[in-house]
Amino acid sequence: MRLAIDAMGGDLGPRATVLGSAQALLAHPRLEVQLFGRQAELERTLDALPNSLSTVLTRLSLQHSPTIIAEAMKPSSALRAPRDSSLAMMLDCVATGEADAAVSAGNTGALMALSRRALGTVAGVPRPAISTAIPTRSGGRCYLLDLGANVEASAERLVDFAWMGDVMARQVDGLEAPRVALLNVGVEGTKGTASVRQADALLRQAGDLDYRGFVEGDGIFSGEVDVVVCDGFVGNAVLKASEGLARMLIGRVQQTFEAHWSSRLIGALARPALRRLKNQLDPVRYNGASLLGLGGIVVKSHGGAEATGFAYAVSRAVQEVERALPTHLASELSRRRSAIAAVPRDFGTGGPPACRPDEYNSER
Amino acid sequence: MRLAIDAMGGDLGPRATVLGSAQALLAHPRLEVQLFGRQAELERTLDALPNSLSTVLTRLSLQHSPTIIAEAMKPSSALRAPRDSSLAMMLDCVATGEADAAVSAGNTGALMALSRRALGTVAGVPRPAISTAIPTRSGGRCYLLDLGANVEASAERLVDFAWMGDVMARQVDGLEAPRVALLNVGVEGTKGTASVRQADALLRQAGDLDYRGFVEGDGIFSGEVDVVVCDGFVGNAVLKASEGLARMLIGRVQQTFEAHWSSRLIGALARPALRRLKNQLDPVRYNGASLLGLGGIVVKSHGGAEATGFAYAVSRAVQEVERALPTHLASELSRRRSAIAAVPRDFGTGGPPACRPDEYNSER
Repeated sequence: MRLAIDAMGGDLGPRATVLGSAQALLAHPRLEVQLFGRQAELERTLDALPNSLSTVLTRLSLQHSPTIIAEAMKPSSALRAPRDSSLAMMLDCVATGEADAAVSAGNTGALMALSRRALGTVAGVPRPAISTAIPTRSGGRCYLLDLGANVEASAERLVDFAWMGDVMARQVDGLEAPRVALLNVGVEGTKGTASVRQADALLRQAGDLDYRGFVEGDGIFSGEVDVVVCDGFVGNAVLKASEGLARMLIGRVQQTFEAHWSSRLIGALARPALRRLKNQLDPVRYNGASLLGLGGIVVKSHGGAEATGFAYAVSRAVQEVERALPTHLASELSRRRSAIAAVPRDFGTGGPPACRPDEYNSER
Repeated sequence: MRLAIDAMGGDLGPRATVLGSAQALLAHPRLEVQLFGRQAELERTLDALPNSLSTVLTRLSLQHSPTIIAEAMKPSSALRAPRDSSLAMMLDCVATGEADAAVSAGNTGALMALSRRALGTVAGVPRPAISTAIPTRSGGRCYLLDLGANVEASAERLVDFAWMGDVMARQVDGLEAPRVALLNVGVEGTKGTASVRQADALLRQAGDLDYRGFVEGDGIFSGEVDVVVCDGFVGNAVLKASEGLARMLIGRVQQTFEAHWSSRLIGALARPALRRLKNQLDPVRYNGASLLGLGGIVVKSHGGAEATGFAYAVSRAVQEVERALPTHLASELSRRRSAIAAVPRDFGTGGPPACRPDEYNSER
């Protein structure tokens, strides 16, 4: 298996991506990695790798790419930019079949736009969705999607997301029947926007998922479901807010143990436990996000990820290659779309009217 | 000052509301409270109050209300329900001027619908917004609104929310020029939904706020702004997800100190520090939420709040009465609306086109 990696993306650049790639190579003995970026910079970073990682260097190659897609560059500009950036060259390598998947910690919008150009989408998906696995209170994880690619989503797109999340959880996590839910402002059928209520009706009609209806925001972390579906605006807001809250709480945990001399002493004793905790406290930072619906595998590592986080994203890509995720996604989406197209739609039966806003919940 | 309190609402009912009210009376020596609920039940709970609170009992009166609005009741059913519920009687008491404000931990949708019927809205606000103060990393707080009353919000409604948040932060927190921002999936002007981008243009044109443009979800907790505005779907999802995450992290902090015998020992020593932390870790549970845009003051306490949380909500209502919040909201909304109506609208200058979706961020 061979992965193409944009070594220039992310806040830490090669410092995180090169070390993270090496860690992933250590974890996956049959993996080969091709790093894209400025040759001289990558060589310097490789030279500085600890000796313990020297055994993996034979499975790691460099490919010089002269330019970088800046973090602030708009997707439209990225599409007009020269094709010699680390991001574009990485994706071309997947498009030609030289690599099985791509991993980048760079500009999400540019990654999305260039991925779509290089790999196309499957099963008539107009725009890929972004998904990440969020750790839950019960020790499992929950896929949340979309995380920002689709700021508005029709009922049909939400249903697509539900199917995609289901395929992910089955293929990658090996769940037999993932529990899928729609994010809403309440669990009653009369709540929410028209598209959420229509998606609810469609999913109930389709009957091909272990569909659990609506969950509220805390349902993402509660462990009661395995997939939570929402539009990209909501998903992005929830994910970023969770990151912000986790960062605040980490700060408070530390403050708590530094406030008084007695708790400083306890803090010193508790340091190893707190270090473990700190990693758990910022879970969203430690998983890659998958771009779903493309004609290939692309994983986005968190821009702020350190080497360990980047290595997780690489491992995520490895798992998706092993499970041939895009093939499954394409075939299941096509099959389910045609199944649902054969069912006559009748929003009027057994549920609230699809388009009349609830008297309390919507002003329109 | 006299507050009307629905003593039957919330997960804990009178156990939290009666004790919380008594605590608030202790904190505010000129406050009087009228509790609405089942007389016998309230009397039993009052009898069980600790002696330390007996001095406040002269400022606390009971008003029997035979029925209760159940947590699961729909707003439309609540509007048809008999008017002898603790919720309805409490609100009538504010409508007649007998009480200066109402506080309930009960059914949010019913509270919203009955408040609107009893008190009406000001300045042509079609539907009140819900707002709460969220603690930030910098030790301050940030008002987030709307939290679920308006699941979809036009640009004009978002602008209303921005103005309301500004008035809250100035009047209640005494900030001179609150920093106001719109929640979005990115900070660039080309990102987000049409209504968010139009609201951005309107707020820039109006120029009557310290408007800071877009923030992402982590901006709520970062301390960089004092008011964050979004539609009720997004605000509700963010708030509930934050609660869920906080609850998960509390669990993990506790697990960390119970995992090994050594950390159990440290945990025992650290218990007082951890107890302080636990309250900080679940901040959203400890503040009341204000219903803004009504012709009166109504504060919603968290349904899961214990007595201390309920007492905070009561104190919130006290502050809003002291600052005559609805009067300020009404006059400022009217003034600002007429000011902005006088400005010719030109979304084409200095900003992105208002309705053309960005090539990357929107599928429509």
